[in-house]
Amino acid sequence: MTAAESFESFSSPWTLARRAERMNPSILREILKVTDRPGILSMAGGLPSPESFPVEAMRAACERVLRDTPREALQYAASEGFAPLREWVAAHLAVQGMAVGADQVLITTGSQQGLDLVAKVLVDAGAPVAVETPTYLGALQAFAPMEPVFASVASDADGPLPEAVAALSHDAPGTRFLYVLPNFQNPSGRLMPEARREALVAAAKQAGVPLVEDNPYGDLWFDEAPPRPLAARWPEGTIYLGSFSKVLAPGLRLGYVVAPRALYPKLLQAKQAADLHTPGFNQRVVHEVIRDGFLDTHVPQIRAMYRRQRDALCEALREHLPAGSEWQPPSGGMFCWIRLPAGCDAVALLPQAVEQGIAFVPGAAFYARQPDARTVRLSFVTLTPDEIRTAVTTLGALLRRHLTEDAPTPTP
Amino acid sequence: MTAAESFESFSSPWTLARRAERMNPSILREILKVTDRPGILSMAGGLPSPESFPVEAMRAACERVLRDTPREALQYAASEGFAPLREWVAAHLAVQGMAVGADQVLITTGSQQGLDLVAKVLVDAGAPVAVETPTYLGALQAFAPMEPVFASVASDADGPLPEAVAALSHDAPGTRFLYVLPNFQNPSGRLMPEARREALVAAAKQAGVPLVEDNPYGDLWFDEAPPRPLAARWPEGTIYLGSFSKVLAPGLRLGYVVAPRALYPKLLQAKQAADLHTPGFNQRVVHEVIRDGFLDTHVPQIRAMYRRQRDALCEALREHLPAGSEWQPPSGGMFCWIRLPAGCDAVALLPQAVEQGIAFVPGAAFYARQPDARTVRLSFVTLTPDEIRTAVTTLGALLRRHLTEDAPTPTP
Repeated sequence: MTAAESFESFSSPWTLARRAERMNPSILREILKVTDRPGILSMAGGLPSPESFPVEAMRAACERVLRDTPREALQYAASEGFAPLREWVAAHLAVQGMAVGADQVLITTGSQQGLDLVAKVLVDAGAPVAVETPTYLGALQAFAPMEPVFASVASDADGPLPEAVAALSHDAPGTRFLYVLPNFQNPSGRLMPEARREALVAAAKQAGVPLVEDNPYGDLWFDEAPPRPLAARWPEGTIYLGSFSKVLAPGLRLGYVVAPRALYPKLLQAKQAADLHTPGFNQRVVHEVIRDGFLDTHVPQIRAMYRRQRDALCEALREHLPAGSEWQPPSGGMFCWIRLPAGCDAVALLPQAVEQGIAFVPGAAFYARQPDARTVRLSFVTLTPDEIRTAVTTLGALLRRHLTEDAPTPTP
Repeated sequence: MTAAESFESFSSPWTLARRAERMNPSILREILKVTDRPGILSMAGGLPSPESFPVEAMRAACERVLRDTPREALQYAASEGFAPLREWVAAHLAVQGMAVGADQVLITTGSQQGLDLVAKVLVDAGAPVAVETPTYLGALQAFAPMEPVFASVASDADGPLPEAVAALSHDAPGTRFLYVLPNFQNPSGRLMPEARREALVAAAKQAGVPLVEDNPYGDLWFDEAPPRPLAARWPEGTIYLGSFSKVLAPGLRLGYVVAPRALYPKLLQAKQAADLHTPGFNQRVVHEVIRDGFLDTHVPQIRAMYRRQRDALCEALREHLPAGSEWQPPSGGMFCWIRLPAGCDAVALLPQAVEQGIAFVPGAAFYARQPDARTVRLSFVTLTPDEIRTAVTTLGALLRRHLTEDAPTPTP
């Protein structure tokens, strides 16, 4: 029985909003329910490694905040966020080439909330919103309640194609923004190189399509730091989203939006209406943890750990994936994206994979339109290198068996 | 220069959503900026007394959570909320006569977020939403982005009039819900008595208008516990919102929604899209604080403190308010509502009050339609009894002077 049926069968005084009629349980969520069983070697989740959580620093910071400013930390607080944390964010972004004031920083309850606020302020029902192909599922979910029409911009291994962005002005006139995740994208793991960034910004300006730039993984580079953010290249045309989830811990739900000053008041009003403010206690604890350069030593440790896991994954993929598989070694982040050989359907293969004790996410969930059934997202940060090798060996065997058994009889 | 002007004067690639064009800075927020200056005896804020924050219990709970379950507390978590906390909520509500399962409890980032989720799931642009007269400003702000048409239901000292609720079926056909705050309402302080609850629920059923019942203050009763919630009387027709902000601390941003099972999946999907989940760390810390009956001793202490402040306020009001003022002693909560004598305009008087070193909130902000300019909301929980007496003495003198100076020449 689906939720809609259960709703209908109920003699009910409630009328759902049109947007709610369209809401459906996240495919990913349903998959994760199946795959998060004990004993499964899961490469499905998007969870950072708990090995990376700075528990002792958190403990000390909670202690200090509750000793020094308990009343301020536990009271209602400003919707903009904790001023010293906003200043820290502005200073942190300056290092990456973004010249922003603390007055442009809005602290959010995870960067997921930033996506919700952006949609509330910029999206009318029926208005086009452009996304990458593939794109972050959580963004599709955050934007969907405002009922946009998604335009899925043709993309390659470097990100959205500039010509496809330029074409938005006639393909999807009135596009409210292009949502783009340039660093180690979820799900594809791809990094947008310098030349593509320049070309993309030029095309977006030409098309009059502003940008929403999401950067949860940018600090997790393995070899060299990513090129400057898009927001540094077009400050008045870009809303930038950042997060502490991947460099500290997601359970604190702490992110931020950096907005052009002309947009900031509207985002702030939307924020106030959404949850008044992000927990002040969390903001002060995180500021206490990071204020004296903690991340300068902590983040390199995460990078080194994830790099080892990435190396184990790539070595195993090279060894075990059948011919015809397409993938590139990710240069940062948490995810590797694979296109399976022709004849593979990742959704259909998942139950067999789970039966064999492994799990992945079929890539189809990450497309706004026309999913590619052959794609798979693997997270490499939750299993140890040994577990990764075991899991990929199993995956390879499964695929080979499938390709042999289901191989179509060659036509003469 | 207004925000709109600054936006317009800016050569901008952005197009605002229609809802954002309507968003305006909260009047209350602007007032609080003026009145939160040091030295002002402010009765304006809606802040619980920081004297009531359980700092030591919080400290111990943070310590235990980070010692016993650091990885779980700092990792991504279920959108529904922390299971033991959901079970605690269900058990807590059972005591108040609500028979709900933990599976009906959705943990939210403050109950303000509950209002946002309810609006997303139930409100289409142009659909009527009924509210009390006056009503909680934060609810108007949370609902407004979904562009309802507000119906302001005629109300008296006991709450909304049942005949006005019954009339919604022809006055505002298709009303999605009636938002009602029966216990020590913000702003009016009023308590809905047993008879009105019965009559209201009967009228709502008759009109086919479901209820959204908000109960942030219900535990803060001074003499006797409020009558059973509306949700206990009409479970399948009521969404119930609760909060830990007033019995523990608002800076944790922890609230909950209890929904009929037919609606729960949609609210959950809206929650997931809004911020994935409420900070797991906060949920575990609060559960750790309250699990062994902490509130049974803590809440009576808050009641006793607030009762003393209420008594000081009422005594001072009786002594100092000019004839023609209308008010009732609140029997719980944080607020007292006053209707000033004819000839008083609370918005116009506020700057003079601030000049004299006191502050209040003009009641006009709390009306969906046709504000009563003579109304004022006073919070009695942030000042000491002595400060309250001083502030009300000043207020009384200001009003008397105003009424004498501005008295219209009597017509013969």
